[in-house]
Amino acid sequence: MGRVDVAEQLAIVKRGADEVLVEAELAQKLARGVPLRIKLGLDPTAPDIHLGHTVVLNKMRQMQDLGHHVIFLIGDFTTMIGDPSGRNATRPALTREEIVANAKTYHAQASKVLDPARTEIRYNSEWSEPLGAAGMIKLAAQHTVARMLERDDFHKRFTSNQPIAIHEFLYPLMQGYDSVALKSDIELGGTDQKFNLLVGRELQKHAGQEPQCIVTMPLLEGLDGVEKMSKSKQNYIGIDEPAEEMFGKVMSISDTLMWRYYELLSARSLGEIAALKRECDDGRNPRDAKVLLAKEIVARFHTPAAADAAEAAFVARFRQGATPENMPEVTLETAGAGLAIAQLAKQAGLVASTSEALRLIDGHGLKVDGDTVADKALAIGAGRTVIVQAGKRKFARVTVR
Amino acid sequence: MGRVDVAEQLAIVKRGADEVLVEAELAQKLARGVPLRIKLGLDPTAPDIHLGHTVVLNKMRQMQDLGHHVIFLIGDFTTMIGDPSGRNATRPALTREEIVANAKTYHAQASKVLDPARTEIRYNSEWSEPLGAAGMIKLAAQHTVARMLERDDFHKRFTSNQPIAIHEFLYPLMQGYDSVALKSDIELGGTDQKFNLLVGRELQKHAGQEPQCIVTMPLLEGLDGVEKMSKSKQNYIGIDEPAEEMFGKVMSISDTLMWRYYELLSARSLGEIAALKRECDDGRNPRDAKVLLAKEIVARFHTPAAADAAEAAFVARFRQGATPENMPEVTLETAGAGLAIAQLAKQAGLVASTSEALRLIDGHGLKVDGDTVADKALAIGAGRTVIVQAGKRKFARVTVR
Repeated sequence: MGRVDVAEQLAIVKRGADEVLVEAELAQKLARGVPLRIKLGLDPTAPDIHLGHTVVLNKMRQMQDLGHHVIFLIGDFTTMIGDPSGRNATRPALTREEIVANAKTYHAQASKVLDPARTEIRYNSEWSEPLGAAGMIKLAAQHTVARMLERDDFHKRFTSNQPIAIHEFLYPLMQGYDSVALKSDIELGGTDQKFNLLVGRELQKHAGQEPQCIVTMPLLEGLDGVEKMSKSKQNYIGIDEPAEEMFGKVMSISDTLMWRYYELLSARSLGEIAALKRECDDGRNPRDAKVLLAKEIVARFHTPAAADAAEAAFVARFRQGATPENMPEVTLETAGAGLAIAQLAKQAGLVASTSEALRLIDGHGLKVDGDTVADKALAIGAGRTVIVQAGKRKFARVTVR
Repeated sequence: MGRVDVAEQLAIVKRGADEVLVEAELAQKLARGVPLRIKLGLDPTAPDIHLGHTVVLNKMRQMQDLGHHVIFLIGDFTTMIGDPSGRNATRPALTREEIVANAKTYHAQASKVLDPARTEIRYNSEWSEPLGAAGMIKLAAQHTVARMLERDDFHKRFTSNQPIAIHEFLYPLMQGYDSVALKSDIELGGTDQKFNLLVGRELQKHAGQEPQCIVTMPLLEGLDGVEKMSKSKQNYIGIDEPAEEMFGKVMSISDTLMWRYYELLSARSLGEIAALKRECDDGRNPRDAKVLLAKEIVARFHTPAAADAAEAAFVARFRQGATPENMPEVTLETAGAGLAIAQLAKQAGLVASTSEALRLIDGHGLKVDGDTVADKALAIGAGRTVIVQAGKRKFARVTVR
């Protein structure tokens, strides 16, 4: 500790963050020069993570590299209970075995970002179970109904007469109690977690502890640059995807989105990124920056060698007809799950008609992300962004929504 | 069981009751001819009970006499927790020893109404503690915030922006869960308990049980016949009061209130009471009926011999100047805690001035409830009703509010 001064540490914490509350308190905590306890709570229901999930992990890693103590908290207690109202079929109760297995997978995946040797793993059943029914009631006494209804989603549901089961008011309190149990100094979360993180502050004050500071990170945009990255939107990069696919997906994003990904996903310092951006502003091909980013990400989740290989394959694929520097960007709407390739080529202005597109396919003249289209029934799913090439010279970057 | 037919049992249950929900279900339960499980939940915070508390106990006794199984449930679990918000200083957490002591006192007092040999006593910590934090959350999942806010007091506080702590939503659920644990067939309570009793019905349905019927009893009016009987209003008859005081207080009530007390407090059958009322309507002095009621109540909480003695003392006190049959009834307002006797006599129209009243006191000519007033500073407290006599012939029944 103490190698990096407070101002610099604050700048690192604030990089890409949506909010830091309360900054003056955080500065005080940092100024003490002792490692801070950083909490990140995880719901071990979906062990399969994508780049969107790694935004918070990156922030954890940055703090870890500053010498702080990182705690990876598995919310096994509430997950074991699940949503007992039975209204939400997507949140079934998991068994302890499933939770431990999911948590292990999550941790293994997260360890590609965090340093596993310096990450403490905890399960909140450790202190939640001993609370008992009486402890639960005492916890519930520390918050009011009106305050709870200030939470955005609760407020919306309440005012639109959608049911809120009473136990849903208990979850934020359980999560806040985790901060008390862990004596957390800082809690990280997505912007959608802000309310819950603030509950932790209040419960710590009640318990006579110094309240944690909270750092909320934005939800990462998906490949389309518009919607949040999510599996259901199919605009995501899974961290277990093959190296070549991962590389290609990063290469498909817009230049604007690339700088956003640099801010939120790259391990490069703000100084390095600023220098790179200046070079591009001065005429360097942004594609070079995109290759650097794609290689960094592939190297992190695979290996540096795999990143080199992915780059080589990507270049080879575009060898015959190089992708033009400034291809048109087109966004197409689909009413269904995806758009048939011939329709897509027509609507993108690459061909005059769908029959022309089908003839091109017959002649091996239509490519998607460098691959020759063989199947006339190929459809591009909503949320995907692909580079489509018709013949030798016509290109478009097409996003299907 | 089965000695009394369903219709008659229903009439007994409904006597004086505010509501019976659901009557058709209750008829079905009764028709089975097996003893029903009757639950009465008690909060062992105030062991000192007055006649108002015995209204529900009387109903229990009536059901006990019909052969049903009566359960006296001590809410020790939530009482042990108290109101941990610290906002309500009047509800401190009690220790287990205090609770058990209070419960014993309560039971001893209640046993003057119930048959103690046929009364089961239970403590809800028996099933509430094993619920654990997880059980508490599952319980909370069975009710919505909106439904809870329909409860009158919650609704009022919510709409007037007064805080409701979240654990207050858990108490009705705990009380409802008691019904599940006890497999209660009928739950009794005051009208102010209706919402909580209905929660019990719902939780039983959730648990796959036949839901309990609920019987709510009105809150008994105090001696003034207007306000609810309560210690703070000083319009109560404590069941531990001396026999003569108890007797005198019953004799001080109005004729209208007497018939109300007959309905809610007397062990006499509806037929007997109706016959007595007919006699009074036909010219019998209602004072006879009042003496019968006063003796019944004193006999219940003391002994029949004590009731006879109290009657004799009462009569003796009024021997010199008999109380007129139809004395005027006067209600006087006081801004403070009570009204000075001279002021009271003047305002009641018994004397022309306070100085006349003071002269009467000097000459031993002013009486309150048959006792000669010796102290000129005597004040009659708000909530009390007294018979005041000025000289030989002037009487008034005066209620101070």
